[in-house]
Amino acid sequence: MVLGLFGYGTIGRGVYTLVENLSKKYDVKIKKVFDLPIKKEILGDKLVTDIDDIINDNDIDAVVEVLGGHDLPYQVISNCLKKGKSVITANKEVVSMHLEEFINTAHENKCSFCFEASVGGGIPIIRPLIDNIKVNEVNNIFGILNGTTNYILTKMGDEGLSFDEALALAKKNGFAEANPTADLEGLDIVRKINILSSLAYKGNICNDDIYHYGITGVTKEILDDIKSRGYVLKFVASSVKNGNDVTIRVEPTMVPNGHPLSAVKNEFNAILFTGSTNDMLQFYGKGAGSIPTATAIVSDLVSIIEKRAYIDYKNENQLEVNKKHVNSNTYYVIDNDNKVSLRMDIEDEELLASKFYARVLM
Amino acid sequence: MVLGLFGYGTIGRGVYTLVENLSKKYDVKIKKVFDLPIKKEILGDKLVTDIDDIINDNDIDAVVEVLGGHDLPYQVISNCLKKGKSVITANKEVVSMHLEEFINTAHENKCSFCFEASVGGGIPIIRPLIDNIKVNEVNNIFGILNGTTNYILTKMGDEGLSFDEALALAKKNGFAEANPTADLEGLDIVRKINILSSLAYKGNICNDDIYHYGITGVTKEILDDIKSRGYVLKFVASSVKNGNDVTIRVEPTMVPNGHPLSAVKNEFNAILFTGSTNDMLQFYGKGAGSIPTATAIVSDLVSIIEKRAYIDYKNENQLEVNKKHVNSNTYYVIDNDNKVSLRMDIEDEELLASKFYARVLM
Repeated sequence: MVLGLFGYGTIGRGVYTLVENLSKKYDVKIKKVFDLPIKKEILGDKLVTDIDDIINDNDIDAVVEVLGGHDLPYQVISNCLKKGKSVITANKEVVSMHLEEFINTAHENKCSFCFEASVGGGIPIIRPLIDNIKVNEVNNIFGILNGTTNYILTKMGDEGLSFDEALALAKKNGFAEANPTADLEGLDIVRKINILSSLAYKGNICNDDIYHYGITGVTKEILDDIKSRGYVLKFVASSVKNGNDVTIRVEPTMVPNGHPLSAVKNEFNAILFTGSTNDMLQFYGKGAGSIPTATAIVSDLVSIIEKRAYIDYKNENQLEVNKKHVNSNTYYVIDNDNKVSLRMDIEDEELLASKFYARVLM
Repeated sequence: MVLGLFGYGTIGRGVYTLVENLSKKYDVKIKKVFDLPIKKEILGDKLVTDIDDIINDNDIDAVVEVLGGHDLPYQVISNCLKKGKSVITANKEVVSMHLEEFINTAHENKCSFCFEASVGGGIPIIRPLIDNIKVNEVNNIFGILNGTTNYILTKMGDEGLSFDEALALAKKNGFAEANPTADLEGLDIVRKINILSSLAYKGNICNDDIYHYGITGVTKEILDDIKSRGYVLKFVASSVKNGNDVTIRVEPTMVPNGHPLSAVKNEFNAILFTGSTNDMLQFYGKGAGSIPTATAIVSDLVSIIEKRAYIDYKNENQLEVNKKHVNSNTYYVIDNDNKVSLRMDIEDEELLASKFYARVLM
């Protein structure tokens, strides 16, 4: 199998190394790598700086897209699939927006579209979920889906760092991007819970319909108070289906000690889903980092080589996606006079007007 | 696809129901069920009481074996595979003893051998592990692999029940068998960690080479003391590979609070493995019960229907399996004068001569 690689950043380099290892067992090689001209020194003749050099190369059977962003990756994925090239991507932004289109284009052109690395980094979750929903009806998903923010909350809660100190440490250790807004505000999590929910509930979901509230208001004092109540604060995505009615929210959440999500620390992620026949299943592992993500990508690659990569996602349900929280949920609210209360009868407007709030998981 | 079902007990009935649901989406039906003559009233003409009625039926493409025990299941699996019928089993005893033989027979006869349900009940672990080792080298596996004993330890630790009370409750709620010896002594766990280790390390392992020490000596007082030290007692299988040297042990283990395994309660199971590229991955879910196990079986069935069931296990490594614990491990030991000590420099003979001991997980 002849590959094209789009993007030679941290993840791209990881993929390159793992594919070299893989070529000892499988007939596979990377023919061309798309990146900026400055990579010429490292990549030599393999470097191409025009995406069409890969898209129009009939030798190339499959491509890996790890560029980041939206417009260029969309163009790359869409055009490669139309040429019958299988595509593997880690790009949650593009996948969350165009999942159905990509899967349909792949089917029409008899190739595969794989995106295991787009959610949960190195955790195998997309394939087990797809397998599971063939015999099971999934009704809810809870997840800690962002390594950066979980790292920050862990360092603040366990080691007493301030928010700014924890963020600086995350950047220093490569767990936070230079501009961490999408992580801190929950946008990154929105995209991931969208992908999982769309697959699990077999219906399209728009990122804009997913409620999110960030963690920038968290302080050491808040974490101490929450700890004294027997909880730990996590940035949790919750997705609940009731008929065709779906409520998806990303918000700071108090997880009771002993709950499976309470032990998820640092850059680790966890995805927990409950269905009609399985009760609760949880998948846990490193949610970020070059090698875990590259491993998920290469695992997809092996499934393409072994002809096991087929995904038969069909948009079967017209989902009503609801931002509003379920009325029976309890919230921990700090008002602008620093008064803490636990509230069940509260509207989102009031939550958003408070100084800080967190959902209380039961 | 036409199926034969061997065994119509709790799991068999669950499989029967799930296959009926599945027939709405796939062309699949159960033609014959092997069980005792007394099942005639429920099963009518579908009942057969001679295994050859299924083995020699050329209409039948695949069989599900949920009989339990060793001799009859071995005969059923071996003969069905030789006839080119794919086999799905939940039988850890038979799988742990004949894994390589069954996979080879399946390959020779161009059919599939699937055993997802043999480890971790409803948790998808066999397929993710097989996928993972294609790009990763797994070096150790830790697991809570038995629902019965985890249920007993949870009820004792969290609700203050005595061992006998907890065992009685487990029996009453269907989580313990009438004769729970294989569970309490760790034999059931031995078989499961054997299957996982054989797959992960690509080498055959004999159940007799796996050390095990049971939990019948656990008392409320011991659990209280362990809790006061910041640990929770779990019945843990640990499997560590170092070159071709493998140490596999099943023993009571003190898990520190906050460790991913510490939050695994009641009949839940968890499997944690660490590899060269993934760091730590954990899979968590219900390890026992009719419907979770039947779900794993039917998930295998779907992979056979969709022609994704191929497993290319090869016995590549001559493993040296070692029962002796690693010297740097710390043990919590209660001697026959009820004196508690933490020991690093201790031989297995002394551990076994103590009143009770537990490994301390770091």
